[in-house]
Amino acid sequence: MAAVSTSKRDFSFELKPQHQPFHANPHVTACKGLTIENVAQSRSIAGPLPLSVAASTSSDNYKSVSCYQHPKAKSWKHRFTREAMLRGPTRLRALATVTANPGLITLGSGRPSSEYFPFEEIQVKIPKPPYFLDQEATKGIAITTGKYDTRHGLSSYDLALSLNYSHGAGSPQLLRFVTEHTEIVHHPPYSDWECCLTAGNTSGLDMVFRMFCKPGDHVLMEDYTYSGTLEAAYPLGIHITGVRMDQNGLSATHLDEMLTDWDTSPGSATKPSLLYMIPTGQNPTGVTQSLTRRREVYAVAEKHDIYIIEDDPYYFLQMGKYQEHAVEKSAVFNPELVGHFLSKLLPSYLSLDISGRVLRLESTAKILAPGLRCAWLTASSEVVQRFLYHQDVSTVQPSGVSQLIMYKVLDEAWGHEGFFQWLMYLRHEYSKRRDIIIQACEEYLPRDICQWQRPEAGMFLWIELQWRKHPLVKKGGIGKQDLEERIFREAVNRGVLYCQGSWFRAGEEIGDRMFLRTTFSAAPLGDVQKAIERLGSTLKSARMKSYVA
Amino acid sequence: MAAVSTSKRDFSFELKPQHQPFHANPHVTACKGLTIENVAQSRSIAGPLPLSVAASTSSDNYKSVSCYQHPKAKSWKHRFTREAMLRGPTRLRALATVTANPGLITLGSGRPSSEYFPFEEIQVKIPKPPYFLDQEATKGIAITTGKYDTRHGLSSYDLALSLNYSHGAGSPQLLRFVTEHTEIVHHPPYSDWECCLTAGNTSGLDMVFRMFCKPGDHVLMEDYTYSGTLEAAYPLGIHITGVRMDQNGLSATHLDEMLTDWDTSPGSATKPSLLYMIPTGQNPTGVTQSLTRRREVYAVAEKHDIYIIEDDPYYFLQMGKYQEHAVEKSAVFNPELVGHFLSKLLPSYLSLDISGRVLRLESTAKILAPGLRCAWLTASSEVVQRFLYHQDVSTVQPSGVSQLIMYKVLDEAWGHEGFFQWLMYLRHEYSKRRDIIIQACEEYLPRDICQWQRPEAGMFLWIELQWRKHPLVKKGGIGKQDLEERIFREAVNRGVLYCQGSWFRAGEEIGDRMFLRTTFSAAPLGDVQKAIERLGSTLKSARMKSYVA
Repeated sequence: MAAVSTSKRDFSFELKPQHQPFHANPHVTACKGLTIENVAQSRSIAGPLPLSVAASTSSDNYKSVSCYQHPKAKSWKHRFTREAMLRGPTRLRALATVTANPGLITLGSGRPSSEYFPFEEIQVKIPKPPYFLDQEATKGIAITTGKYDTRHGLSSYDLALSLNYSHGAGSPQLLRFVTEHTEIVHHPPYSDWECCLTAGNTSGLDMVFRMFCKPGDHVLMEDYTYSGTLEAAYPLGIHITGVRMDQNGLSATHLDEMLTDWDTSPGSATKPSLLYMIPTGQNPTGVTQSLTRRREVYAVAEKHDIYIIEDDPYYFLQMGKYQEHAVEKSAVFNPELVGHFLSKLLPSYLSLDISGRVLRLESTAKILAPGLRCAWLTASSEVVQRFLYHQDVSTVQPSGVSQLIMYKVLDEAWGHEGFFQWLMYLRHEYSKRRDIIIQACEEYLPRDICQWQRPEAGMFLWIELQWRKHPLVKKGGIGKQDLEERIFREAVNRGVLYCQGSWFRAGEEIGDRMFLRTTFSAAPLGDVQKAIERLGSTLKSARMKSYVA
Repeated sequence: MAAVSTSKRDFSFELKPQHQPFHANPHVTACKGLTIENVAQSRSIAGPLPLSVAASTSSDNYKSVSCYQHPKAKSWKHRFTREAMLRGPTRLRALATVTANPGLITLGSGRPSSEYFPFEEIQVKIPKPPYFLDQEATKGIAITTGKYDTRHGLSSYDLALSLNYSHGAGSPQLLRFVTEHTEIVHHPPYSDWECCLTAGNTSGLDMVFRMFCKPGDHVLMEDYTYSGTLEAAYPLGIHITGVRMDQNGLSATHLDEMLTDWDTSPGSATKPSLLYMIPTGQNPTGVTQSLTRRREVYAVAEKHDIYIIEDDPYYFLQMGKYQEHAVEKSAVFNPELVGHFLSKLLPSYLSLDISGRVLRLESTAKILAPGLRCAWLTASSEVVQRFLYHQDVSTVQPSGVSQLIMYKVLDEAWGHEGFFQWLMYLRHEYSKRRDIIIQACEEYLPRDICQWQRPEAGMFLWIELQWRKHPLVKKGGIGKQDLEERIFREAVNRGVLYCQGSWFRAGEEIGDRMFLRTTFSAAPLGDVQKAIERLGSTLKSARMKSYVA
């Protein structure tokens, strides 16, 4: 069957692509890389966006020429699963992206005509940069999109385009913005990187696992990690091997030891070749890897030829160190200092990635809205292409309405600078929330039985409980899991909900420590303090007495 | 590992669900089932929608009590793959759907606060029912949604809710509409059916294959079928077994013969247990299964215990028979006759399904817009629940913006009656297009070397070519595949694009017939005739001479 299915996917006809890749433009001279300031120049060199339905596109059309001064990524083809290798381009998508002789009439792809979309106009009201703190005064912006704005020369994107199918990697409109944003922030140090929109990070990760992992494979992760990742991996038959963490995040030393000491004798489990990490404001521990740690971990990955999945939804919530009694100070928000904001961001793994061994997952759930279900990933062309083959026959593309709204807000209304100002505003808001939860912890939690690290990024505060000090445990009448459950029930009874640390435990060992995860993202600000007070009373009573089972 | 991962998913705490299932309501008395007329009454009995973020919900809250007079579906658990069986509810989603004691403050789920969504208001302009044909006069409707409309009692759905995470099966708002619509149209004859939103049908089907098929399994399909389905199935290691078709669609006789004669001796391929079909306006053949045929196929499925995937995106484009010189007649659109429209729809497999052996995929791509990426499926609770376990850790949910827009248009602005009038309008428009392409075929195509069946539903017209009559074939100088390719190239040269029939061929045999698929959905109406004329000239010249390779 393999032979037949392969021949089914072979395209025996070839028609010319719609858009020449940017790097093929001989008039472009080298520059120092994309910045907010030279985006307009880069766009003018690249030329106009393709404005046809489901126009074929790629990040290559939107990267600055400086990208091509770097060497190419390594090939990862030998790591692809059989499922991934059996994939190829889809017939009808390929057909839909072709425009051959002018005047060609298509009776090919079964795309509906836009006259049958029952949407004539969409208008969105959004806050106006840069003074996001003071929206009463500015009253925001209203952005209106008509059905045929593009045809009428009013915009590069409209309802007729966004409500039809788009190219799998994204509409050219939004993909251009996302590619530029990625280059401005991360400047990947190899040449053939690309971005690709996904229907949310969770969707992207599910497909990435299927691309790199076969049943029985071991995947390396921080020894506590996002429970959704564990729940996505287990049913695929993936074994998870936890790597220890310290106050700087995943331990490069332990990673190296594990890989060096891996039993490679026949019959043993295959040595892991994939590392999944949340390097910034880690979920659930709140830990952020230092630059030194990132370099060490990347070096270990190079040494053992490990491919890295960098899941980094909290990247822009880098709040910096908590300063005692300095809520006022961390509350400073100066939208003038975009350059300073960018220069202080910790480098991502993508930005350290000389070999193209990093697939970076970029979420919009924490910086725009989870309901958009529109995220993107960045990796080498070879990996992105293989990913797209799957996306084309599964999610197809993120919602066109989400893409339209994101493009209109991010590109047309805000621009790169306005978006960075929005991110600075969010960082400022989360800093306030972080400071409040830390102060509440310091005021209400019993230090003799619990400790916490002050998060410098993200939205989580991770608390360790000295569970062996509990009276029932000391008497020998109760185990760790039972106690964790009892404390949780007692906390709910006292009016506070959190996540049990064991839900995030990677790998097969339960471990001998007990944690709980709190988040300061969701509750109304005034409630955060009250919730920690309730948690404190729960834990203090744990010191005294046992909870009812 | 299995033991550990299972214990990870066990919920040792139980908090009460947010919403009582509708059928638990003792005040509801039996009625004849949901109709457009009694939707309001049914809603008033069911009570208000839950209005919290990511509120847990299910179709059971929105079905009429008459549903529960039917017997329950069979269990299909024994057909689930290992991957599907390893799945369970996700920790954090379960936590997010719980409201226990009033006053509980959550530091649990890392959902962002809606104050950090940069969208204050959204407005959509849509056409107004019932006179979709005459929109100049009515000027349409503008629907505005504010961020906190729900809090302010202005609507049951708003931006704060739709831009946050929703329950995996859908927001209660849209899921209610979809469930009611499904009951009104299909009246499934077993009790425990449910609907579940998906991020588009293609995404749904990818997950359904993984739920029911392991590598090496044979799946039954019409012997020509949608190429995207083939491309989704092959990389999973699925073998496709084509079932013959005639002018009434998939042959029940051939299906029965294949299954009866299947070699079940040890070492043979496992007998198929899954049948995938597009029963209405089939892609690519345009054929619609008659009611008799549907009953026959369902009976064969009962006999051999086959589970059916009913992929039915063209269901509402049932245009009826083409009438010679009757374009004017088929163009009649009378929005008063909703009841008549509904009564004339062919029964779906879902509506014949006494055993719960049908999973129906309902697309919105052809009746609203492909870019919404928001569809739904209907199946028994057991199957839907297992599907949701996967969706929760992959696509999570369809775009909340798409859900919001669909709810606002379908439920608040149009209602069920208005939506049916929209579907009647679409059917009317596609009928016009269908009539034009048929007339063009009859005028321009050479009948001695090609035949076609007049489609009664959908958007495709399927043409068979008498390829053995081609001069080069008669001379023995060229094979079928080569000729198909040459004709395609010649057609593109002459300015018409279509799809080669071989792209849709299911199974491993190439077959000895040659087809091409045209669609009348996309090209501007005036171009359709021109395109068929070009196709005619291509084929006529094929009669005379060979094409250049």
